[in-house]
Amino acid sequence: MAEEKKKNNDNTVFIGNKPFMNYVTGIVMQFTTQNASEVGIKARGKFISRAVDVAEVASKRFLENKVDIKDIKIDSEEFENKEGKNVRVSTIELTLSKK
Amino acid sequence: MAEEKKKNNDNTVFIGNKPFMNYVTGIVMQFTTQNASEVGIKARGKFISRAVDVAEVASKRFLENKVDIKDIKIDSEEFENKEGKNVRVSTIELTLSKK
Repeated sequence: MAEEKKKNNDNTVFIGNKPFMNYVTGIVMQFTTQNASEVGIKARGKFISRAVDVAEVASKRFLENKVDIKDIKIDSEEFENKEGKNVRVSTIELTLSKK
Repeated sequence: MAEEKKKNNDNTVFIGNKPFMNYVTGIVMQFTTQNASEVGIKARGKFISRAVDVAEVASKRFLENKVDIKDIKIDSEEFENKEGKNVRVSTIELTLSKK
């Protein structure tokens, strides 16, 4: 719920299974047509590599000299899986910011 | 002293296909038995997610209150593959540092 609220205020993209360029295009559009000053990219587990790829391609190929990677944070989340076992998963949040 | 300096520069672990705990143990040992003040964790492509997992487990489970994630950098490398095509790969470098 907190997640949803945040979405309304800031521009955060969650990386998952969709085609790679969907994420890149979405980010580029936020900076261009929606005039965002910052866009966040979040991912968990195996999608972390993908989030880094998306950030690199968006900032270096499509928004070169316009957008920087301003901040990178990593963290862990713990939750109980279906078998009642405690599982840890890593998370990443990258912040792209207009120069 | 030169010995010490060298140690600080050379404490870098490259994340690949080895068992997960090999990397974690290696890092913990560098801080404990080898008394390193900083250890770098580097990875490329799909191993980036794993590097984040290694950093999180080492710093939060094994070296809690002793070691912090001091810095995270991402970048891209371009190279030519066997077919002569230009390929881009993302890289990450995490720096763990003694508190």
